[in-house]
Amino acid sequence: MAALMESVVGRALKFSSTANFRSIRRGETPTLCIKSFSTIMSPPSKAIVYEEHGSPDSVTRLVNLPPVEVKENDVCVKMIAAPINPSDINRIEGVYPVRPPVPAVGGYEGVGEVYAVGSNVNGFSPGDWVIPSPPSSGTWQTYVVKEESVWHKIDKECPMEYAATITVNPLTALRMLEDFVNLNSGDSVVQNGATSIVGQCVIQLARLRGISTINLIRDRAGSDEAREQLKALGADEVFSESQLNVKNVKSLLGNLPEPALGFNCVGGNAASLVLKYLREGGTMVTYGGMSKKPITVSTTSFIFKDLALRGFWLQSWLSMGKVKECREMIDYLLGLARDGKLKYETELVPFEEFPVALDKALGKLGRQPKQVITF
Amino acid sequence: MAALMESVVGRALKFSSTANFRSIRRGETPTLCIKSFSTIMSPPSKAIVYEEHGSPDSVTRLVNLPPVEVKENDVCVKMIAAPINPSDINRIEGVYPVRPPVPAVGGYEGVGEVYAVGSNVNGFSPGDWVIPSPPSSGTWQTYVVKEESVWHKIDKECPMEYAATITVNPLTALRMLEDFVNLNSGDSVVQNGATSIVGQCVIQLARLRGISTINLIRDRAGSDEAREQLKALGADEVFSESQLNVKNVKSLLGNLPEPALGFNCVGGNAASLVLKYLREGGTMVTYGGMSKKPITVSTTSFIFKDLALRGFWLQSWLSMGKVKECREMIDYLLGLARDGKLKYETELVPFEEFPVALDKALGKLGRQPKQVITF
Repeated sequence: MAALMESVVGRALKFSSTANFRSIRRGETPTLCIKSFSTIMSPPSKAIVYEEHGSPDSVTRLVNLPPVEVKENDVCVKMIAAPINPSDINRIEGVYPVRPPVPAVGGYEGVGEVYAVGSNVNGFSPGDWVIPSPPSSGTWQTYVVKEESVWHKIDKECPMEYAATITVNPLTALRMLEDFVNLNSGDSVVQNGATSIVGQCVIQLARLRGISTINLIRDRAGSDEAREQLKALGADEVFSESQLNVKNVKSLLGNLPEPALGFNCVGGNAASLVLKYLREGGTMVTYGGMSKKPITVSTTSFIFKDLALRGFWLQSWLSMGKVKECREMIDYLLGLARDGKLKYETELVPFEEFPVALDKALGKLGRQPKQVITF
Repeated sequence: MAALMESVVGRALKFSSTANFRSIRRGETPTLCIKSFSTIMSPPSKAIVYEEHGSPDSVTRLVNLPPVEVKENDVCVKMIAAPINPSDINRIEGVYPVRPPVPAVGGYEGVGEVYAVGSNVNGFSPGDWVIPSPPSSGTWQTYVVKEESVWHKIDKECPMEYAATITVNPLTALRMLEDFVNLNSGDSVVQNGATSIVGQCVIQLARLRGISTINLIRDRAGSDEAREQLKALGADEVFSESQLNVKNVKSLLGNLPEPALGFNCVGGNAASLVLKYLREGGTMVTYGGMSKKPITVSTTSFIFKDLALRGFWLQSWLSMGKVKECREMIDYLLGLARDGKLKYETELVPFEEFPVALDKALGKLGRQPKQVITF
């Protein structure tokens, strides 16, 4: 499907050079274009495209893509909502080692409604809610046409903003709790960057399993408020980094057991603090590097404390033929969201206001909720 | 047995304060002291003892220990040879988290000859060669009395200097090749500190399994000679650190496959070089920190390259009830040494010259072979 996306975008951009784009009129309702008796065409689509790698606010632009054929095994989906994740930004910046060739449509996850199906498609009907699962590139557009195997039908009772964002962040939290250390009820985990959505999901998913969380947050305006919000989600302990300028951070553990597992999405000193908390033989999993600082580890941490350092990248995990497993977990997570057991804040932004949402996602306007574009 | 050693040393040091030590006369042959019909006593023993932690050249001294009882399950061993390992130095310095309480006799491995056995001991006879296995503290003395379960009888055809040193360094190399990554013939490993005895053993043990080695050594006088020595042992590639100031160290790999496993005993930049060589999903095992610099790792190494960082400490491995497994491996390694398939340089030093051997082991006299005390 990546190849299809490329060819579509490629065609569109070639088209663009002839100034032959269909202009977008507000309120216009796209219609199903039928080219011939046997060919179903998608409506034309609006998409956020980047033609080169770089800062997303300078390399992305809104383009009109012409209709594409909905082949016999394809499903045409009218997107409902898609988030701007940090990984989307990194992908556009070109820092990811695996990336769709440019030009490409941005976005990697989202939720949409089936609009039309190819003649061989039986598993989907117009009106179904679907997500690309595993997620795949190109969700920042109004109509997406991909093979039916790409799509996963979901329960429409789940709030749309959770359906749009369930894979990249919540699934990362779930996998990291499952894949590295065998945790039991009564155990604890430690994490930095706890206010991130992954961090918030770790707190809630751990609590559902009876696992306590020790949460490290940055010192900044609003950290008291952040502490209360995390505690409301079920965090057992929340410390700002400055509180941890003590020789023995474990003295702050109270009755919590020393954690066997830690998560790091910050690097630098914040990663060292996670390591300090870990018990002998513990594992720290790095899944982000917000501070852009490396991780520094003493020799004795490895030899005498037997710490293990690992990494997690959802895209890599998903590439290992885990489609079925992935969809089962997504359904589990969506069920939790539907039942109010998994919560995080999102801000819905109309597609036309994409540049503002992007600025917020880039952190230009201070701390903001997860930006979710609605189409 | 640790408790026994403590009590013996404790008694001796108490004795010392009364100036009642038996003086040592060169050439004197100790004799078996029989206190009563039913009590076998060891000969008096000379030992290198430390009463407090600190630099070994200031806290160790030669003392005379009085005879101790050889109880019914004990074996009294006349030590033949014992090495001064870096781990012995670290243990005396007090940097090890697990250490015998002071006062203590130095040394952790060695080979000796059975001198007398307790009335219930059937597995050993005077004249047998034995090593403490797993190794245990107190080998730097002329007579060691420990329970029979401590001792492992070995093949007398193995050169004495290998029998004395087979556990701490060669077994570390063997375990590290076995315990972390499933290696097959045709694979490769990368290591820094390749001139260390562990490094030399890695080269030879890997080669026996058809595994290639990429070896990193420091830039210093004699590095060309070191390169040739390592190549003679079977090293496939040897690079000094300055040769690796290139953007893509893997371009130097030639036809060797990218290594899935790396060993680090240096830290700092030398550890980063090992990480650079590793293939995606590779593991670096830290077992030493000669540069006293920490290990610094980029976030992307964990997320996109999926590297894992682990540690190895032989003492910890041995503490996991591995007595039988340990002895089988020791026999395997001693067989290789006997057959000339496992080689490294040692220097035999008479016990009376311990201070010189210690200075050499401490690096005061430049690069020196492994110092092995003979009794």
